Amino acid sequence: MTTQEQLYQWQELAQQLRVDSIRATTIAGSGHPTSSMSAADLMAVFLSKYLRYDFDHPDNPNSDRFILSKGHAAPLLYSMYKAAGVISDQELLSLRRSGSRLEGHPTPILPWVDVATGSLGQGLPIGVGVALAGKYLDQLPYNVWVLLGDSETAEGSIWEAFDHASHYTLDNLIAIIDVNRLGQRGQTELGWNTQAYANRAKAFGWQAIEIDGHNLTEIDQAFSAAVAVNDRPTVIIARTKKGKGVASLEDLGGWHGKALKAEQEKQAIAELGGERHITITVDKPEAQSQPAALGVSQPLQLPTYQKGNQVATRRAYGDALLALGTSQPDVVVLDAEVNNSTYAEDFAEAFPERYFEMYIAEQQMIAAAVGLQVRKYKPFASTFAAFLTRGYDFIRMAAVSRANINLVGSHAGVSIGQDGASQMGLEDLAAFRAVWNSTVLYPCDANQTAKLVAQMSDRYGIVYLRTTRESTPVIYGSQEQFSIGGSKIIHRSQRDQATIIAAGITVHEALKAYDRLKNEGITARIIDAYSVKPIDIQTLHQAAKDTNGNLVVVEDHWPEGGLGAAVLDAFAGNSSTPAYKISQLQIIKLAVQDMPTSGTPEELLHAAKIDADAIVEAVKSQVRRLVGVS
Amino acid sequence: MTTQEQLYQWQELAQQLRVDSIRATTIAGSGHPTSSMSAADLMAVFLSKYLRYDFDHPDNPNSDRFILSKGHAAPLLYSMYKAAGVISDQELLSLRRSGSRLEGHPTPILPWVDVATGSLGQGLPIGVGVALAGKYLDQLPYNVWVLLGDSETAEGSIWEAFDHASHYTLDNLIAIIDVNRLGQRGQTELGWNTQAYANRAKAFGWQAIEIDGHNLTEIDQAFSAAVAVNDRPTVIIARTKKGKGVASLEDLGGWHGKALKAEQEKQAIAELGGERHITITVDKPEAQSQPAALGVSQPLQLPTYQKGNQVATRRAYGDALLALGTSQPDVVVLDAEVNNSTYAEDFAEAFPERYFEMYIAEQQMIAAAVGLQVRKYKPFASTFAAFLTRGYDFIRMAAVSRANINLVGSHAGVSIGQDGASQMGLEDLAAFRAVWNSTVLYPCDANQTAKLVAQMSDRYGIVYLRTTRESTPVIYGSQEQFSIGGSKIIHRSQRDQATIIAAGITVHEALKAYDRLKNEGITARIIDAYSVKPIDIQTLHQAAKDTNGNLVVVEDHWPEGGLGAAVLDAFAGNSSTPAYKISQLQIIKLAVQDMPTSGTPEELLHAAKIDADAIVEAVKSQVRRLVGVS
Repeated sequence: MTTQEQLYQWQELAQQLRVDSIRATTIAGSGHPTSSMSAADLMAVFLSKYLRYDFDHPDNPNSDRFILSKGHAAPLLYSMYKAAGVISDQELLSLRRSGSRLEGHPTPILPWVDVATGSLGQGLPIGVGVALAGKYLDQLPYNVWVLLGDSETAEGSIWEAFDHASHYTLDNLIAIIDVNRLGQRGQTELGWNTQAYANRAKAFGWQAIEIDGHNLTEIDQAFSAAVAVNDRPTVIIARTKKGKGVASLEDLGGWHGKALKAEQEKQAIAELGGERHITITVDKPEAQSQPAALGVSQPLQLPTYQKGNQVATRRAYGDALLALGTSQPDVVVLDAEVNNSTYAEDFAEAFPERYFEMYIAEQQMIAAAVGLQVRKYKPFASTFAAFLTRGYDFIRMAAVSRANINLVGSHAGVSIGQDGASQMGLEDLAAFRAVWNSTVLYPCDANQTAKLVAQMSDRYGIVYLRTTRESTPVIYGSQEQFSIGGSKIIHRSQRDQATIIAAGITVHEALKAYDRLKNEGITARIIDAYSVKPIDIQTLHQAAKDTNGNLVVVEDHWPEGGLGAAVLDAFAGNSSTPAYKISQLQIIKLAVQDMPTSGTPEELLHAAKIDADAIVEAVKSQVRRLVGVS
Repeated sequence: MTTQEQLYQWQELAQQLRVDSIRATTIAGSGHPTSSMSAADLMAVFLSKYLRYDFDHPDNPNSDRFILSKGHAAPLLYSMYKAAGVISDQELLSLRRSGSRLEGHPTPILPWVDVATGSLGQGLPIGVGVALAGKYLDQLPYNVWVLLGDSETAEGSIWEAFDHASHYTLDNLIAIIDVNRLGQRGQTELGWNTQAYANRAKAFGWQAIEIDGHNLTEIDQAFSAAVAVNDRPTVIIARTKKGKGVASLEDLGGWHGKALKAEQEKQAIAELGGERHITITVDKPEAQSQPAALGVSQPLQLPTYQKGNQVATRRAYGDALLALGTSQPDVVVLDAEVNNSTYAEDFAEAFPERYFEMYIAEQQMIAAAVGLQVRKYKPFASTFAAFLTRGYDFIRMAAVSRANINLVGSHAGVSIGQDGASQMGLEDLAAFRAVWNSTVLYPCDANQTAKLVAQMSDRYGIVYLRTTRESTPVIYGSQEQFSIGGSKIIHRSQRDQATIIAAGITVHEALKAYDRLKNEGITARIIDAYSVKPIDIQTLHQAAKDTNGNLVVVEDHWPEGGLGAAVLDAFAGNSSTPAYKISQLQIIKLAVQDMPTSGTPEELLHAAKIDADAIVEAVKSQVRRLVGVS
C-alpha cells in the first residue's frame, strides 16, 4: 500500500509541476498551462515511482522510453525535467524563446526527447514502433509509456496503434489518456465517458483501466497493474480536470493554449501552495543488459544484373534489401500488406524476426519506422508510392524528429498501366522533396537500384526511393558506381544540341528518343538524374553550357515539384548562392498534365506526352528554334 | 420470408456477377476476379431488393448512394451495372482498356460512380459525408451503402468513420464488410474473426450483424435489419470466401489481383453454371421529394477592412465565410477542432445546421467534404495548414473523384512563431500544387482574402487557401478586385532594376524591403502573387523583361515546390508551350532552409532569411552584379 508520506510527496511534486507549468508559460507569454495541469498528478507518480530512466545516458538501452503524445503539454514535460534535476529553473523559464532547447512542442534538441510531437495522434503509433523494438529486437524488459490527450483519440492513427499493439502483443506498451474533457474549442466527442474509451480499447484487445486521474492511490494502482500485465498492452483512462488545482481555470472553457497574466499567475501559484523546488531521483533501470544480437555484420554482396536483361527496379529493390539485411543485422523492414508487390517479401521470408507486417495502415507503418530508429535500427518501409501520401504528416513530423528512415514507393507513375489513377504515385517526388533534409532517389535500372539501396541505410534523414512496377532493360554494368547527389551522363558528344534529363522509367524513353534524333542528325546529351534530391547541379550547369541552354526534362509525375522542378531549382540562386548565369537557357518540362485513365503502359506514357515521341518533338522544337534564330 | 423463387433468382444473379467478373478480367488480362466473387451474393441481394436507385437520373436526390470502398472489386460493380441493364456486355468486356469508361478502379467517368475508390479505407469516411448530407441537409430518407474489404479496416480512417457516424447518429449509413479473410499477400490481421469486428463496431456505437456472406437468407435478413434501425449506423460483417464458387480459387492464397487464363476461365465458368445474361430492374426511389431548403440565396455582402488596420487573414477568412454562408445556402463548413483558430467558428455559430465538427480527424474531415459535394453542397474544410498533410491521400483521391472542395490551412509558415516546427505548415504549397487541377491561393491582406473566398465556392476542383496566423496590415482598398490566376503589382516604375515576388506574409516584408531599397536609390517592382496556382505568367514575363531578368522570390515555405517553383515554372515550356526566351534571367529564391525553432515571428522570419533584410540583400546582389557587368 501507498504510505501517507509517499502520497504527500507525490502531491507536493504534482503541485510543483502545475506551478512550474504556469510560471514557464506566463513568462513566455504563450503555451498550454491548463493541459499540463490536468496530467500533473499522473506524471508525479510516474516520475517518482514508475519511470526507469538513465538521464545521464539517454541512449541506455535498458531505459524506459516516454513519449508525450500530447505535445502541447510541453511545459509539464519540462517541469518534470526540472524536478528530475536535469534542467535548471532558469532554463525552464526560457520556454519558447529563440535559442532555448525548450520549444513550444518537444523536439529531440533535448537529449531525453526521442521524437518530436505536436501533431496529435502520432505519439502512440510511434510508441508501437519503440515497443516492437523493445520486445522483438532489443528483447529488453523496458516499458514504453505514452501520455495522450483525449482529443487526439479522434485520429484514426490512434486506432491503427491500438490495433497493431494488440496484434503484436505489446505488453511493454502503456498508454495513459488524460481525459480532461475539454479540447481546444469545447467539449471533446466523448467528454468524460471513460467507459466508452475503455470499451473501444478492450474491443481492440487492450487491458483498459479507468481511474480518477487526480486520485494518487488509483494512479499508483493503475500503473502497477499496467506494469504487471504480460499478455497485452494497457491503457489507463484517467478522468481529469483541465487546469486542475486553480478554481479560476479548473474544468473551464476558454483556457486552452492560454498563458496566465502576471496577476493571474500570482493568484494561481498561491492557490497551489506556492513555488516549490523539489528535486527527485528518478530510478535508473536495474538491468544493464545489451540488446539482443540479431546477427553478425557481413560484407555486403549486392545482387548484380546482366546488361540487356529485363528487370523491374522494384524487383532489384527486393533483392538488394535482402542482401543489405544479410550484411547489416540492424536493418529492419516494414510493409503495408503489399510486400509481394514491393518485393519486401524476400526479406520477410529470410528474416521474419526483423520484418513487421503493418497491414494496410501506412500511418502506423511510418510511425513504427520512426519508433524503430529511436532504438538505432535502420528501417525500410515500403508500399505503393501513391499510398505513402497517407502518411505525409508522419513523414513531415519524422523530419522534425530528425529521424533516419528509409521509405520506398513502388508502382509510381502512369507507367503502371491498367490499374488506373488511384494507384499511380504522381505527386510523391514533390511531396518528398518538400520534406526537410530529405533525399529522393529514382533509379532506372536494377544495378543502379541495388547500388542506391546500399547507400540508404547509413544516410541521415528521410530517404525516399521510387521504384517502377514494370520490367525495364538493365542498362548499366554491375560495376558502375552511383553516388547520392550524382547523375550519369549516358550519351555525350562535342556537338550535343540539346540535353534530355530523365529519371526512372523516362530514361528508357529518353534513350529511344536519342536513337531517333540521331537518325535525324540531331545529337542529344542524355542525363540520368537518379538523384532527384540532392540533384547534380554541376552536371546540369555544364550541360546547359554545352548544349545552348536547350534542356528537356521528362518525368512520370505531375508537372509540379518533381524532377523538372529540381532541374529548374538548379539554375536558381538562394540566400547564399547566386543564380546561375546563362544567356540562352530554355527548359521544356514534359510531365503528366491530364488525369490518366487505364490503358497499357505504352499507351499511357504516350497519352501523357512523356514518351520517346514527345521527347523527340520537344528536342526538335528547341533545335528548330536555334536554326530559326541563327 | 424469402421465397424459394427469390432465392433462386438471387443465386442465379450472384453466379452471373461471378462469371462476368471473371470474363471481364480474363479478357483484360488483369484485375481482381476473386475479390469480386466473394461479395457477389451480397450484391445480388442488394441490387435485387434493397438498392433504390434512379439509373436514368444519377443526380436524383432521392436515390440511395452506393460506394465501392474496396475499389479493386470494380469488375463486380461493372457486372452489377450490366445486370441493371445500364451497360452492355460488350462494354463490360472493355474493362481496363484505354478509352473505356470501365477503369481498373471505379471513377466518376461513369455517371453512377459518385467518387473514385482504390485507395483503401476511403469509401466509408466519404460515405459518412454523404450520409451527413442525407440526414442533416437534404433531409431525405435515402440510405448510403458502402461495401468494404476486410483488409482496409486496418486503416485508421475507417475508425474515424465509425466514430463520426456514431457521433452523428447516421442511421442512414450501412457498411458491409466482405470478410474474405485473404488480403493481397496472405491472411488479414483478424482473419475470419467476425466477432472481433463486431465488438469493435459495437464499441464505436454501431449496430453490428454477423452473417454468412454466402447465405442469401441471412443476407436478406441483415439488410432488412440494417434498413429498419433508426438510432445508429449498421455494419454487416459477412464471412465470405475469396473466389467463392470455383474450387481452384476458393479461399486460396496467390489469387489476389490475378486474372484467369483462357483455359482456367472456361473451367471456372462451367463450374459456375455457365454464362447468364439476366437483366433486373432496380427499384427507383419511391419518394420524389426535393432536398430541404436551407435558406434563400442573397446578394453577397463581403466584409470590408480599413486600409492600414491590422487584421489576420485567417480572421478575414472567418468573416468572409460567414458572408458567403449568408449569401449561399449550399455552403457548408467543416473543421477539425480548431475552429477558434481558423475562425470557422463564426459560421458554426451562425449556421449550426450547416457546420460539422469533425474533431481531430483530418482524413475524415476531407472525406466528409468529398461526400458532401457528391450531393452538390459546397464544402469549406479548415485546420492548420500543417495538419492538412494528414489527409494528403484523401486530397489526391478527391482529385481523381473530380470533387469540388475548398480546403483552408491556417498557421502557415515560420511566422506563427513560438509554437515551433510541428505546427508550421511549410510544405502545403508544394503538396497542393502537386494535386491535379488544383487552385492554390495565398492572400496577404484581409480585403484580398475576402475577395478570394468569394470566388472559391464556385470554382471546380481542389481549391486551397493558405491563411496567416498573425495580424498584418490591410494594404488594399475594399474595392480592389483579385481574380484567380491574376496578381497585383504593388509598385512599378519605368526604371525598376529588379522584381520582388511575394505572397502572404512575405508581401509585407517585400514592402519594407522596397522602402529601404528606394532609400538606397534602387527601385524594385513588387508583385503580390496571391494566386500561386494558376500563377500570373504574363505579369512575371513582363517583369523579367522590364527588370533585366532580376527576380527575387520570397516565401514562408520550404524551398521546394512552393511559390518559387511556381515562378520558375512560369519560365519553362511544356509539350504545348515553348519555354520563355530571355537572355538574362536570374532568379533568387528565398525560402526556409533550416528546421525552424520557437521564437517570435520576427526572429524566425529573420533566421530563415525571408525577411526584409534578406530581400534587400538579394536584390542588391543582383543589382551589384549588373553594375559589375556593365
